[in-house]
Amino acid sequence: MLIMHQKVTLIGTGGMATVCAMLLNRQGCRVCLLARDTGRAEELMKVRENRRYLPGFTFSEDVEITSDAGAAFDGANILVNCIPTQHIRTVWVELIESVETHIPVASVAKGIEIDTLLRPTEVLLDVLGELESVDRRAVATISGPTIADELARGLPASVVAASADTEFAQLLQKVFNCDHFRVYTNSDLIGVELAGATKNVIALAAGILDGLNAGINAKSALLARGLAEIARLGVAMGARSETFFGVAGVGDLATTCFSPTGRNRSCGELLGGGLPLDEALERSLGVVEGVPSTRSVYALAERYGVEMPITRALFRVLFEGLNPVDGIQTLMTRDPKPESLS
Amino acid sequence: MLIMHQKVTLIGTGGMATVCAMLLNRQGCRVCLLARDTGRAEELMKVRENRRYLPGFTFSEDVEITSDAGAAFDGANILVNCIPTQHIRTVWVELIESVETHIPVASVAKGIEIDTLLRPTEVLLDVLGELESVDRRAVATISGPTIADELARGLPASVVAASADTEFAQLLQKVFNCDHFRVYTNSDLIGVELAGATKNVIALAAGILDGLNAGINAKSALLARGLAEIARLGVAMGARSETFFGVAGVGDLATTCFSPTGRNRSCGELLGGGLPLDEALERSLGVVEGVPSTRSVYALAERYGVEMPITRALFRVLFEGLNPVDGIQTLMTRDPKPESLS
Repeated sequence: MLIMHQKVTLIGTGGMATVCAMLLNRQGCRVCLLARDTGRAEELMKVRENRRYLPGFTFSEDVEITSDAGAAFDGANILVNCIPTQHIRTVWVELIESVETHIPVASVAKGIEIDTLLRPTEVLLDVLGELESVDRRAVATISGPTIADELARGLPASVVAASADTEFAQLLQKVFNCDHFRVYTNSDLIGVELAGATKNVIALAAGILDGLNAGINAKSALLARGLAEIARLGVAMGARSETFFGVAGVGDLATTCFSPTGRNRSCGELLGGGLPLDEALERSLGVVEGVPSTRSVYALAERYGVEMPITRALFRVLFEGLNPVDGIQTLMTRDPKPESLS
Repeated sequence: MLIMHQKVTLIGTGGMATVCAMLLNRQGCRVCLLARDTGRAEELMKVRENRRYLPGFTFSEDVEITSDAGAAFDGANILVNCIPTQHIRTVWVELIESVETHIPVASVAKGIEIDTLLRPTEVLLDVLGELESVDRRAVATISGPTIADELARGLPASVVAASADTEFAQLLQKVFNCDHFRVYTNSDLIGVELAGATKNVIALAAGILDGLNAGINAKSALLARGLAEIARLGVAMGARSETFFGVAGVGDLATTCFSPTGRNRSCGELLGGGLPLDEALERSLGVVEGVPSTRSVYALAERYGVEMPITRALFRVLFEGLNPVDGIQTLMTRDPKPESLS
């Protein structure tokens, strides 16, 4: 397989879609970016820069940008969904006519669909009518600590390409892997997708600690206890616990909890500083996935009977008016027990 | 058991000894701080503040400060070693005459003794002549994300009290646990001590990334891969892997890698910025435990036949003159494989 014979079509025009397009273009792939409408496609083609979500970096002329789904999918070997979780269904419902049945789909979305509690790749299969099919196409997630701006600057990063289909995971590894972007494969798709969804929940809580000036000791303890509870949920849902302790688990969680620019952590910081949720969301640029994901993850915890004290406290802070200070107190004053991950 | 009937003697006058004295005093214990000489004891008694290691916080008059080991140990129920790992042997050799055989010893030191490759509690037992004894006293470690300044300000934190002796771990939990300092117990003493020693090694490497301006994606990937390699070593040495994913494992690791003030991370940052090791150490205040620990952990990896690529690369940077940039390259350009913790 030659990389230059691969056509990769990216659906979406956010920061990750943009940086993936640049990266795959440098790798020698044929890259097509599918925008949601003609205006957006023309704007990107004209300025060759994603000024809204990734300012300061130029697209090569080789990157095709279009709003014509038929043209975008024609001859594509790999599709990559870069639409945020809660919008996947709406966007893809309009695309299904143009998507050929054999093309495998990867997704970089992190979250859980709020009404269905489905993971991003499950939502995609559902829209494509293949969720219950035995003969469904290969799906994968690409996940890890990937602040788009750092990737665009060529700084080193690692991700996991996870799929139950080993060949598809290896294809993604081959296409994406380069000297500054290291791609591991993992067959635990459930674990990697759940890790990506749940880390935003923990990062929101971590941001609240920042807003309360609670210190790094507290935030690191939250990270460790948060990791334990999301791993517990994962295991109950069929994931492997070690996935949560890998690059797409604790690696992504650490980035999200400590990066000053992260949307979820920053939104949490505003909440910890005393702002109501609606105002905090108004001040945030782009989608704060941790907010709907807190609902979804809390519902999953209930469904699977898993104890998730941090998620529960955050749910009460976000949606039941619990004061963030009391939320933290709830966490700190529970009876300490022998340390355990289970 | 009433806490106020417990006399706890802390050996050492660093930041952790100071903050433990303050914390236990507020809990109602009788607290004695054993200084290495009369001058240091008198200085601390006179100013009632540890200006060198924890400026801005006052000792209560109830805290006894002395350089008389006999008086310090007399009637003590618990000893807590707060001497840094590489100095434990020298300091304790002079104390053994005064230490009664039945008093249990906890330690807050993090490291591996460089010549013997013993853990802090093993060094203590060795000096006390009990390492090979079947009837040895109870030993424990107290470990976790504990930046002393934050603890002194009463900010929330969690630690693990680890001992093969469950009763001693529970006694420590009872004595230390309060509303802002949450103490978990853990029977995996080996794991908790190893986690404390190895996290400084990974934090030095993380600091080098900071010095190279490699970004948060890279540092978080290093944290995840570092955690995997220190867990591998731990399992080979008889520890439980889940200990490394708890508060004293990933929690402490995250603090050490991300706290701007951490000595190990900061020293690494100077190295990444181009300073030679001796100059970087000269500029560091206090003990940079990660430097000797890199030697010890590398030696343990060789002895137990465990692959530890980050530790090996750091060893070559610190002691064999490898350029930090090449050290990082070594890590990033190895063939990516399926993700695995084993």
